[in-house]
Amino acid sequence: MKQRRKVLIIGAGRSTSALIKYLLSKSEDEKLHIIVGDKSLEAAEKLVGKHPNASAIVLDIFDEKIRRKTIENADIVISMLPARFHLSVAKDCVTYGKSLVTASYISDEMMALDEAVRKKGLVFMNEIGLDPGIDHMSAMQIIDRIRKKGGKLLLFESFTGGLVAPESDDNLWNYKFTWNPRNVVVAGQGSAAKFIQEGRYKYIPYHRLFRRSEILHIDGYGKFEAIPNRDSLKYRDAYKLHDVLTLYRGTIRRVGYSRAWNVFVQLGMTDDTYIMEHSENMSYRDFTNSFLQYRPNDSVELKLRSYLKIDQDDILWEKLEELDIFNPNKKMGIKNGTPAQLLQKILMDKWTLKKDDKDMIVMLHKFGYEYKGENKQIESSTVVIGDDQICTAMAKTVGLPVAIATLKILNASITKPGVQIPTSEEVYEPILKELAEIGIRFTEKEVPYLGYNPEVVNG
Amino acid sequence: MKQRRKVLIIGAGRSTSALIKYLLSKSEDEKLHIIVGDKSLEAAEKLVGKHPNASAIVLDIFDEKIRRKTIENADIVISMLPARFHLSVAKDCVTYGKSLVTASYISDEMMALDEAVRKKGLVFMNEIGLDPGIDHMSAMQIIDRIRKKGGKLLLFESFTGGLVAPESDDNLWNYKFTWNPRNVVVAGQGSAAKFIQEGRYKYIPYHRLFRRSEILHIDGYGKFEAIPNRDSLKYRDAYKLHDVLTLYRGTIRRVGYSRAWNVFVQLGMTDDTYIMEHSENMSYRDFTNSFLQYRPNDSVELKLRSYLKIDQDDILWEKLEELDIFNPNKKMGIKNGTPAQLLQKILMDKWTLKKDDKDMIVMLHKFGYEYKGENKQIESSTVVIGDDQICTAMAKTVGLPVAIATLKILNASITKPGVQIPTSEEVYEPILKELAEIGIRFTEKEVPYLGYNPEVVNG
Repeated sequence: MKQRRKVLIIGAGRSTSALIKYLLSKSEDEKLHIIVGDKSLEAAEKLVGKHPNASAIVLDIFDEKIRRKTIENADIVISMLPARFHLSVAKDCVTYGKSLVTASYISDEMMALDEAVRKKGLVFMNEIGLDPGIDHMSAMQIIDRIRKKGGKLLLFESFTGGLVAPESDDNLWNYKFTWNPRNVVVAGQGSAAKFIQEGRYKYIPYHRLFRRSEILHIDGYGKFEAIPNRDSLKYRDAYKLHDVLTLYRGTIRRVGYSRAWNVFVQLGMTDDTYIMEHSENMSYRDFTNSFLQYRPNDSVELKLRSYLKIDQDDILWEKLEELDIFNPNKKMGIKNGTPAQLLQKILMDKWTLKKDDKDMIVMLHKFGYEYKGENKQIESSTVVIGDDQICTAMAKTVGLPVAIATLKILNASITKPGVQIPTSEEVYEPILKELAEIGIRFTEKEVPYLGYNPEVVNG
Repeated sequence: MKQRRKVLIIGAGRSTSALIKYLLSKSEDEKLHIIVGDKSLEAAEKLVGKHPNASAIVLDIFDEKIRRKTIENADIVISMLPARFHLSVAKDCVTYGKSLVTASYISDEMMALDEAVRKKGLVFMNEIGLDPGIDHMSAMQIIDRIRKKGGKLLLFESFTGGLVAPESDDNLWNYKFTWNPRNVVVAGQGSAAKFIQEGRYKYIPYHRLFRRSEILHIDGYGKFEAIPNRDSLKYRDAYKLHDVLTLYRGTIRRVGYSRAWNVFVQLGMTDDTYIMEHSENMSYRDFTNSFLQYRPNDSVELKLRSYLKIDQDDILWEKLEELDIFNPNKKMGIKNGTPAQLLQKILMDKWTLKKDDKDMIVMLHKFGYEYKGENKQIESSTVVIGDDQICTAMAKTVGLPVAIATLKILNASITKPGVQIPTSEEVYEPILKELAEIGIRFTEKEVPYLGYNPEVVNG
């Protein structure tokens, strides 16, 4: 009997469920044995269950001896650790000649291993989750096709969002936490968002970001809105888009979310840089009041309406009330909390997925190009709904590309050595094909080239 | 003949003019010789002129040998260097047993020298300029007086501003740069402003700061406005104000400034954290347009009005136009500029003091207290106008307290040893007295206790 091949998965976090499920489903045919290593044996055991082709082990990556031995013993390694922990794993993979797959952004330190990785003929595939991951593959497939037939790219816009599925969408924000809530609360903070529209650089500071949303439409799912990411020019090099006039990347929400979220930004509730005094005993109402004028004879409600000029009939107000931010009885119960931590507490009361709730991933790309003197545009989108609270849409879209890539590298159908991201045809073609077979499929359509020049549209 | 006492002044910056002028004026009677050391001999020479009791020397504080020799040779040392350069000077002062005077905030490293300074019986007087400096002294004089007669402090508010004198005030902003323009452009940035009003902590994020100004009135000078500083609680320990219900510190501007400045904040023009593409060849209009939507068929003007909801008849608009921010012909000419650097360029065209312009320093304190069951309030203020472009109000208010303190330490009328700030009676009484004699004098008045409770005011 052929010896089973050992796939080592390091880190048993939320995003590994679909990844492991996929590999287990292939384990008999492909003769795989899956080893899930985590510092918590319980977490690892929970993921592998009692499957005969899998085992759970304790793996503390700071224990060098054990880490090395475990990696030496594997045939291929997947690191689902937070990005900052990949490097020691990656170095061991070089030492013992194992290929490596991660869903994280390539760090400079990871890139520095490229020569050693190439020399040993290994594949170190990174950024092969959802975003980054599926976005790279689905975009490059169309970009390469346009280029091959002689088209010239003019515009590339790309939008992704993790949302709640329509069937579980039961609040006024049309939003629930489907991933790390903290990341949602502090999203967009830091330096200004930067992008290019028709050759002009545009900059939006954080405090205006949520008033600069744009409307998107996805067939069958209606309208969405997108707010610009900080990093729209990030993939200019990777996609070779240096001459493109419009480059814009954004985060998708349901329509109206950003305008209401802007209230928290304006008040300063998303700030994570300082600790609020007496946060533990603060009520939700006290918290809100901390950002408003001292006027003891006026209500917190009226002070807020007046401060941010919220009309009496503005639906935004119902969104705030739904979150209970004026409640004088609910206590924070968090010591030394930052505004962002306290806001997160308020939101988690209402935005935590219920037992049967499903999540939804939405991704949309727009490609504008010139072909034989004519301007054309392609829109490509996918919507993925979660199966349940374990195999969420997020876990599937992050984990499945990792799993598929791992197996293809193990089977030597992806072979180009080096530290890389999945922007080459050898990689994205077979992976997108298989993703489509298991339900993660992009719908493409030709639309009139819009660009950003109204006269072009009217003309 | 008595040997002349040598006063070493390190650093020949803008704020040293009044300091040196004062010491020179006393040099005959007090038998002083003033040595001004700077890395630029020219700068030092310009300040001392041809005065027989002064000399200019080259002093590079990184040249340890020269620095030590120079300090050893002095009788007292004044450091007017940027705060981060004080430490090596301070350590040499300990070694050679010289007292030291600076206008800078005490750093932790400076404070760590306290024991050694006390042991040698030296006085290291810090924070004895304007703000910090005159604010400490003028506030503590009244706080101590209230306490001595048995009053209990309820409220302390303190406001300072560097403005243009009324006779030189000829633009719509009622503002010109009288100090480092960069500090004005980035003022208020960082973590939220924090203060206490009637026992409640209040927090204002940077992007709302300029919409939270309060109106002040100073007899003879009319109305001003103040925006909160980030650090209103800073002197709670130093002034022993732990039980005080209201603590608020602010920066003074002329009425209407903050609301107009808010436009720059909203657009993101005050951001100093990233470099704008192609900044060198950008026109002022391009710069403004960078923060607005791409809409080639609409004017930059209309896009801005619409974005920030500026009414057609809003005087704020004239303020923007006065600065020429829509000019397509004026070029930035600054390579790799941050938004803040580029905005500073625009402002310097209009806000630079003209040859005969004078500056003005305004300081106002409010003290609320309970005395024999009654609530009372004192307001204390000073307005200082500059003599000319050399002896500006800023140079006088920073330099004169330093000069007076230096002489009093040299003459052993201020003797309490240690690293300190001028909050003790021994220090502030004689210095404030002499400042008043030379024209920097506070006017005090009793007003009804206002606090922040309207019912108290009405009652």
